[in-house]
Amino acid sequence: MTAIVTLLTDFGAADSYVAEVKGRLLLLAPGVTLVDVTHAIEPGDIGGAAFVLGRAWPVFPDGTVHLAVVDPGVGTARRALAVQAGRHWFVGPDNGVLDSALGVKGARVVGLEVPAGAAPTFHARDVFAPAAAALAEGTGLERLGVPVGDPVRLAIPEPRRQGAAIVGQVVYVDRFGTLVTNIPGQRIDRRGTVRVGPHDLVVHLTFAEAGAGEPLALVGSAGMLEIAVRDGRADAVLGLSRGAKVTAAALPARKNER
Amino acid sequence: MTAIVTLLTDFGAADSYVAEVKGRLLLLAPGVTLVDVTHAIEPGDIGGAAFVLGRAWPVFPDGTVHLAVVDPGVGTARRALAVQAGRHWFVGPDNGVLDSALGVKGARVVGLEVPAGAAPTFHARDVFAPAAAALAEGTGLERLGVPVGDPVRLAIPEPRRQGAAIVGQVVYVDRFGTLVTNIPGQRIDRRGTVRVGPHDLVVHLTFAEAGAGEPLALVGSAGMLEIAVRDGRADAVLGLSRGAKVTAAALPARKNER
Amino acid sequence: MTAIVTLLTDFGAADSYVAEVKGRLLLLAPGVTLVDVTHAIEPGDIGGAAFVLGRAWPVFPDGTVHLAVVDPGVGTARRALAVQAGRHWFVGPDNGVLDSALGVKGARVVGLEVPAGAAPTFHARDVFAPAAAALAEGTGLERLGVPVGDPVRLAIPEPRRQGAAIVGQVVYVDRFGTLVTNIPGQRIDRRGTVRVGPHDLVVHLTFAEAGAGEPLALVGSAGMLEIAVRDGRADAVLGLSRGAKVTAAALPARKNER
Repeated sequence: MTAIVTLLTDFGAADSYVAEVKGRLLLLAPGVTLVDVTHAIEPGDIGGAAFVLGRAWPVFPDGTVHLAVVDPGVGTARRALAVQAGRHWFVGPDNGVLDSALGVKGARVVGLEVPAGAAPTFHARDVFAPAAAALAEGTGLERLGVPVGDPVRLAIPEPRRQGAAIVGQVVYVDRFGTLVTNIPGQRIDRRGTVRVGPHDLVVHLTFAEAGAGEPLALVGSAGMLEIAVRDGRADAVLGLSRGAKVTAAALPARKNER
Repeated sequence: MTAIVTLLTDFGAADSYVAEVKGRLLLLAPGVTLVDVTHAIEPGDIGGAAFVLGRAWPVFPDGTVHLAVVDPGVGTARRALAVQAGRHWFVGPDNGVLDSALGVKGARVVGLEVPAGAAPTFHARDVFAPAAAALAEGTGLERLGVPVGDPVRLAIPEPRRQGAAIVGQVVYVDRFGTLVTNIPGQRIDRRGTVRVGPHDLVVHLTFAEAGAGEPLALVGSAGMLEIAVRDGRADAVLGLSRGAKVTAAALPARKNER
Repeated sequence: MTAIVTLLTDFGAADSYVAEVKGRLLLLAPGVTLVDVTHAIEPGDIGGAAFVLGRAWPVFPDGTVHLAVVDPGVGTARRALAVQAGRHWFVGPDNGVLDSALGVKGARVVGLEVPAGAAPTFHARDVFAPAAAALAEGTGLERLGVPVGDPVRLAIPEPRRQGAAIVGQVVYVDRFGTLVTNIPGQRIDRRGTVRVGPHDLVVHLTFAEAGAGEPLALVGSAGMLEIAVRDGRADAVLGLSRGAKVTAAALPARKNER
């Protein structure tokens, strides 16, 4: 049974960088199974990387190691982390890219040392790949570094209740132009409408229930409210991007809910 | 000996979607070998996906499972299929994307059930990946669903004979801008010319026989007539796209030929 | 212990071509581990491909086979090569794409035969994949063809000394817009400046030491002088591309240095 290592970076597909990371992983952890999450994160987009990683990693089998490197501060004093969250392991810079793992109850965090000779601009290859390989080979987290008590977290916006509505925002735009919000589908009243800008949208079950070119709301495959356009791009049709305000009819508030 | 699962989608490379499908496959079929065919199909381009799949799958070893999901009707009543064609297996929506497998003599087709809890917008992860994993693990086709007798086929255009010529059309444009036609190379007279729009092109053996920037015809690596431009893009130079008419000098008709 | 085969082409990610090469490899060398270096080389850019391959291959474990096909002359009389350099193996066209392997002391080179039936436009699938599979399965180089004594080499520019300066050029632009030069970092005086066009740049250790949007020089992760812009693209900000002249303060010349 070989370990799985997933890779998520903003390195793109055209250069040698991803292959250099993979070569190092295969050298240090022979037989490991490598799976690309994506290398098409916009350069330096830590929030986008954290979002994509947060969706992808829980689907993988226990024991998987996730390398996530979007790292505009590479080579500075920012720390390099390894994290254990449940039965998943993570390596990446201490800038919030690992936020979804850090939010898991009982997550443990250590700071990685930068090996002598590591290139100041390529910690993915020289710091994170060796750490991921060690974890994939069964090395315990505590052997990789000393505990870190204050890892950098992202200020991820939370939706808030406003009368009979719940108000949130677009947190991600996917390849189809679909706008993913921070509003959990289970908190909205699907018989009500969803307002974005001047538009009042019906909540459908799937894209094909809307007319071609028509905007709609739906609960996406990760359980969050999304705004889409059938056979089109919601971002272009509605002129919206990350941060855009979204208001939905709310289900009655539960106890302790904001 | 581990099974191979190939993946073909229009999900793009930037989001978490492909990784979620792979995570599910690795969870349900540990040790499976995953191979991307492509995830860069234009969103919703069923014909393009069917073409690319039809070229790729016959090259893989017997026993390979092919997951192909370009699925604008996801979540509607369109059926989900599993297909066996020779010693290859396929899963995908019932919209024609599996056309090349359905055309294999003796192909068997079953309809997949949608598991409770499947996201209405993400059958690739929640319906097709589990089915592909089951097939990769050796589950028989008939155990996955009930036979389907009328799967959706594509109306793929056939070239037709017109006097001494064979008239077809461009069915695919590749990354180099090369125009792939539906005219089998073995039906054309290579000493004659190929007409596209106002151009009469010589049939060459390979790109480099033409002058730089010069359009040419040739029989491509899948045996079909293609229009290319040496060191350039035929689609741009000739102003042509999918559906453009192509006329070639024909070899003498064989019996029963249209 | 399964062999690794890396793949580098200009085939792009959208078509079936890469999958056809992989299917052939998996058919002929079952269980082989496939790693993409890149398929996003600009069509026909032999120099770019040679650069990327030269960075990637030394990172992989001994025994790895590297398939590199950027091949505008496919189907002509240009030779097809297999190369052994140290404990790495290579296959690709005889046009310079394998230059980094050919430069290794003691490299051995043979010419591959084109099998009957090989498509004249797709030697990656029909010539190079079978050869790579054979090498991955342990076939000796000399069994694949007859020795070639004069493989095509690239005229890679060398930096030259000019008084107290070293003068080189940009040889590659990466996905971040960073300009990689042919000047080894160990030959420059880091206390001096680097001149590109009208700009005099400070040599920093890493990107983040410069101000946002500010151009800087640094020694990159392969040991060469690079020009970058923090949180931006140096190619766009400075209006420079491959071939641009770069002048750096030099360390005192060593013996025999040009």
